Amino acid sequence: MPANDAVIDLLGVLAYAEVSAFDHLADDARMAPSLASRVQLSSMAAVEFGHYEQLAERIRLLGADPAAAMAPFVAALETYHALTEPQTWLEAVVKAYVGDGLAVDFYREAASFVEPETGELIRSVLTVQGRAEFASAEVNAALETDPSVRGRLALWARRLLGEAISQTQHVLADRDSLVELLTRSGDLAGVAALIKRITQRHGERMAELGLGA
Amino acid sequence: MPANDAVIDLLGVLAYAEVSAFDHLADDARMAPSLASRVQLSSMAAVEFGHYEQLAERIRLLGADPAAAMAPFVAALETYHALTEPQTWLEAVVKAYVGDGLAVDFYREAASFVEPETGELIRSVLTVQGRAEFASAEVNAALETDPSVRGRLALWARRLLGEAISQTQHVLADRDSLVELLTRSGDLAGVAALIKRITQRHGERMAELGLGA
Repeated sequence: MPANDAVIDLLGVLAYAEVSAFDHLADDARMAPSLASRVQLSSMAAVEFGHYEQLAERIRLLGADPAAAMAPFVAALETYHALTEPQTWLEAVVKAYVGDGLAVDFYREAASFVEPETGELIRSVLTVQGRAEFASAEVNAALETDPSVRGRLALWARRLLGEAISQTQHVLADRDSLVELLTRSGDLAGVAALIKRITQRHGERMAELGLGA
Repeated sequence: MPANDAVIDLLGVLAYAEVSAFDHLADDARMAPSLASRVQLSSMAAVEFGHYEQLAERIRLLGADPAAAMAPFVAALETYHALTEPQTWLEAVVKAYVGDGLAVDFYREAASFVEPETGELIRSVLTVQGRAEFASAEVNAALETDPSVRGRLALWARRLLGEAISQTQHVLADRDSLVELLTRSGDLAGVAALIKRITQRHGERMAELGLGA
């Protein structure tokens, strides 16, 4: 069983990931081509904030302060978002889908290594219905109108993955506790294996979205 | 009992007020001086989005499309927000408090004039705990450090009220159905009485916040 501090680190990084996802999805929603699609992205933002509240509640139950637990991870997450600011609505939709998928992966990786209550909470915030369908519908509609969009969006998705992995490595380099939580072996080989699993799942999701290699 | 169309107009304007409140609160949260206070304003944004979802559900139950119901009111609400963009964290906090108070007033005015189910829904989204306490704490802390802030914030609150009334009048000038729903008499004298009641309640809330005349 990991030390309490490591679990708080894990909940802290997940919690700030939710707060920053909320913030950036709310911002990106302004690019929507219609009020109906704007509301769909805003709704994702609100769901992320609900996840944050569940994680923050758990952090408080473990005797820590959510803002303090999140603080060490603000820079990495904000760097990720600054380097992946969508310029179009489709980029925003693909980012929401990719970001959500990566979050699900990290949650899954982490859930099995923590005490049952935290694991159950982490699994409970995993299930987000309808996101893949929304992204697929938006991307497919765009591809039908202009098939050349496909290459640009595929490139964009790879860039999102690259920046996410890069920031993950920065965080793990600073936090041995998280390396132990998130990898089987607790060493660099474990980090490499983790990144390989996440890259593989990202590829599967891109294929489902019609943006596969 | 008002016609279905008038109720849908009312739900549409309230729904877009929630969507735009979500959007601008999420934006304003970025000005927060700390992660903890940023999360508090973001949390208000998420609550507003939850209200939107309840109103949209009711619009759908009445056989209308939420985006179509909101469309006629986008310009007025966005004009209000464009003319009242906070430049400081305290302005954002006061705007959140004033905006919430005005929304509560309009909800109360409207709730008694619609069918019981819609009235009950409207009353159920009224109750937001802890907002006044949050605003009071932030404003009082600022006044202790720098009492000269008081005059500027009082002026800001009056401007917020003025712009809100101005946009309300624009909306009512276009929508006779809403004049009938929101006023006792359904005429200009009714509109004047409505604005007087709302101005009075705003004054009471400002006094509670320590920004009274």
